[in-house]
Amino acid sequence: MKLKVRTTDMVTSSPSIVMGPSDCGLLELKENDRVRITGPGGEAVVLLLLSESMVEPGVIAVSDPVCSRIGAKDGDEVDVVFSPMPESVRAIRRKMEGEKLDGKEIESIVDDIYHGSLSDIEVSAWLTALHIQGMDLDEIASFARAMVSTGDVVKFDKGPVFDFHSMGGVPGNKVTPIVVSIVAAAGLMVPKTSSRAISSGCGTSDFVETFCDVNTTVEDLKRLGESVGGAFVWGGSLELAPVDDIAIKVQHPLGINPRAQMLAAIMGKKLAVSADYLLMDIPTGSGTKVPSIEDAKRYAKEFMELGERLGIHVECAVTYADQPVGSAIGPILEAKECIQVLEGSEQQSSVVEKACQCAGILLEMAGFQNGEEMAYGLLRSGKAHSKFLEIVAAQGGSPTLRSDDLVPGRFVKDLVSARSGYVHSINNKDLVAIVKALGSPRDKGAGLVLHKRKGQRVVKGDVLLTMYAENEDKLERAMEIAQRYTPVVIEGMLLSHVTSSDI
Amino acid sequence: MKLKVRTTDMVTSSPSIVMGPSDCGLLELKENDRVRITGPGGEAVVLLLLSESMVEPGVIAVSDPVCSRIGAKDGDEVDVVFSPMPESVRAIRRKMEGEKLDGKEIESIVDDIYHGSLSDIEVSAWLTALHIQGMDLDEIASFARAMVSTGDVVKFDKGPVFDFHSMGGVPGNKVTPIVVSIVAAAGLMVPKTSSRAISSGCGTSDFVETFCDVNTTVEDLKRLGESVGGAFVWGGSLELAPVDDIAIKVQHPLGINPRAQMLAAIMGKKLAVSADYLLMDIPTGSGTKVPSIEDAKRYAKEFMELGERLGIHVECAVTYADQPVGSAIGPILEAKECIQVLEGSEQQSSVVEKACQCAGILLEMAGFQNGEEMAYGLLRSGKAHSKFLEIVAAQGGSPTLRSDDLVPGRFVKDLVSARSGYVHSINNKDLVAIVKALGSPRDKGAGLVLHKRKGQRVVKGDVLLTMYAENEDKLERAMEIAQRYTPVVIEGMLLSHVTSSDI
Repeated sequence: MKLKVRTTDMVTSSPSIVMGPSDCGLLELKENDRVRITGPGGEAVVLLLLSESMVEPGVIAVSDPVCSRIGAKDGDEVDVVFSPMPESVRAIRRKMEGEKLDGKEIESIVDDIYHGSLSDIEVSAWLTALHIQGMDLDEIASFARAMVSTGDVVKFDKGPVFDFHSMGGVPGNKVTPIVVSIVAAAGLMVPKTSSRAISSGCGTSDFVETFCDVNTTVEDLKRLGESVGGAFVWGGSLELAPVDDIAIKVQHPLGINPRAQMLAAIMGKKLAVSADYLLMDIPTGSGTKVPSIEDAKRYAKEFMELGERLGIHVECAVTYADQPVGSAIGPILEAKECIQVLEGSEQQSSVVEKACQCAGILLEMAGFQNGEEMAYGLLRSGKAHSKFLEIVAAQGGSPTLRSDDLVPGRFVKDLVSARSGYVHSINNKDLVAIVKALGSPRDKGAGLVLHKRKGQRVVKGDVLLTMYAENEDKLERAMEIAQRYTPVVIEGMLLSHVTSSDI
Repeated sequence: MKLKVRTTDMVTSSPSIVMGPSDCGLLELKENDRVRITGPGGEAVVLLLLSESMVEPGVIAVSDPVCSRIGAKDGDEVDVVFSPMPESVRAIRRKMEGEKLDGKEIESIVDDIYHGSLSDIEVSAWLTALHIQGMDLDEIASFARAMVSTGDVVKFDKGPVFDFHSMGGVPGNKVTPIVVSIVAAAGLMVPKTSSRAISSGCGTSDFVETFCDVNTTVEDLKRLGESVGGAFVWGGSLELAPVDDIAIKVQHPLGINPRAQMLAAIMGKKLAVSADYLLMDIPTGSGTKVPSIEDAKRYAKEFMELGERLGIHVECAVTYADQPVGSAIGPILEAKECIQVLEGSEQQSSVVEKACQCAGILLEMAGFQNGEEMAYGLLRSGKAHSKFLEIVAAQGGSPTLRSDDLVPGRFVKDLVSARSGYVHSINNKDLVAIVKALGSPRDKGAGLVLHKRKGQRVVKGDVLLTMYAENEDKLERAMEIAQRYTPVVIEGMLLSHVTSSDI
């Protein structure tokens, strides 16, 4: 049956056409069927949507991208026929039944998600099945490989490639540029790609871009790695395992993050930058993705076994994450603290320690002895700082950058303690809510500095944290949240007084 | 932030607006977030879609239904803010984790699906979780009740209400009008609603509408039940458990049919017509939904236990479905065979037998003795036929309707046997494919008559089946399919000759 095209702007996750119910009936088609549409210049398989009102009989609404693929314009006649269920949907069904998928099946799903051949309905079913049924390590390795094959791949003429990845979840984790600078100062190649904040208050790329450009290309990253030895760019400016981005959009409203998807995406992105040696940082503590040491060890085992399957030597660092790393949270404040450490300040002891310990493991993976000591040496000697400035300059920043150049928002307020006692715990999630309310990561000057750490003595009226914002409204809103929540929990030595009347 | 409305025609499963990436960034919104949009005349919670090209900064695209809900028109300014995840999504997540949901949670999901508050992504995740994790009978009972509360309910001033439901899957099952006519002739009230073909070649309503009107309203069905005693109307013309229709659209591309959804929908529709006594027909045989007697007994147990929870007395008939019921498949041909039985013909022995046995069980459920015998009596005496004509007339058909009035398509072809032997088996699925190719159920005259049944002797050249169509192309296409498939499997007495060379 010939149908007349009407072009339309539609927002759909996969290429679609819209037909009226009577034409659907005549062609024995149902809503959400796949159809093959043939125009004067080609054909495409698209999703069929139904509308009672949008099109009259004999007319179909076709989005511009589909029109250009089939070479059709307004008023052209096209042919529409049923197209059978793709192989990938059969594979999704097999995962629903709890079956193990082979590499070809996983590839068909990843390919079809990437090309938009699966609708939101099907991608959602896939992620739900994945969340419930999981995958074994063979499947996850195939999944990672399939993700790489649909995106950019960075290949280096030199080697080996060292990489460092933090699972995230701990606020204020500004160690990445320090680790990269130390390791690159030792002559290793560490072309690091980072992410922006997803659920956190500020990602590595969010603070690095306050002092240099984080956008990159495959060629740029290759050049940075090979000539400078290190980089701290934004992975999102490359198309590394792009299927992950599509999955994230679909799983976002469901509030799920299937473990297999997460592991495959992390390892896929490492494969895509040709990593040979990878240190995984697994921040562990209440309020992170990894609450206990046991969980952390399970992740570590999986990452190492996946590495084996994928030809990447993986080691893991389970790190303390019950409170922020350092005291600053927010783009400019984190950048400042990070650079202060590189400039030689040892005030930020948790930052220094974590950076040197992680860098130390990487150095030992490269065959050096006493990695941690060596890392401290490279930091204290200023060699890491020089390498840092070299990378900053290579990424378009100032070669004479100083931490004092960075100035946080001019609207400032303190949160003071309403009582005396000891810091019993720090609520990472509350801190994140406060910095988000302050405007982080979009407002670069927004953020907070935490003045007390766990176990410290606090006197009523002491400043617990200082908030910075770029505008007064956000500062007020954040202050309200800070007062309503309990970002810093203070208790006396006496936690509870039990008397006979309580029994 | 104020945004300017641009109205648009969009086809989305749930009310949506479209924003550009920069506005999303400013408002810290992500694709597929829920947002509350406030216009001059009201507010609505809608889904946020993202488009790079569809809208410029400061402008949002809003569909007409959303515009009218918030009283906004082109160019009006509206306010958009983040809206948190609804309770129903939390319940969906709990089902993903394999938890048992309570009545309130299930109700929130059903309500939100009905009102379009859940997107395709979320409905798909729900159905996938339901498919994988299932529900226990308490949950299914709550699910059925929740479905009823979102749709039409038919209440009768008289009682009790008898009902009959076939799980389907067997071609040519034209017994419903016969069962209804017999039972109503005994003075019981049986206001039966039927469906159209979904995966089958011809549903009850598809053939009943060849001789009377099947569309009805809540008031019509009440009147038919109370004054005539029986009805055979199309359930789809009422809004009985309408959430099922939405679910069917979403599960269709996935090729799943969650058992809990199916059971709840069946029972929900029975609750919605106030059934007191229900006979479930469970056709059992290869190529149906219920391949074995064990499966059938499991279904029977579930239906009866659900009935107990919902206040419906349920009994089940596990019926033979290895081959079609009777010999005709297709609207006019089935109608003809059905009416012939009511007119007294006993040639269609499998139709007569199934109808009288099912009617017999219903009569015994009403307290009559020897139900089957009584059913045969009502059929042979012509009382069922009179009641049938009374119902037909009440549904707008001719009170003097005769089977001869119905004439199938004028394009006719026979499929003859290429060999001699015995009918070893009948492939129901092949028969369905052939009648669909002939044009059934849309072309009322399309269909086939099967001349041989299982076990019968066939001589090469015998006519196995006769095909009818309303146009020659479809007849040709169906003939090709009939010759390529094996709707009727003929074997000699010797099924296989094994010699020493095979061992």
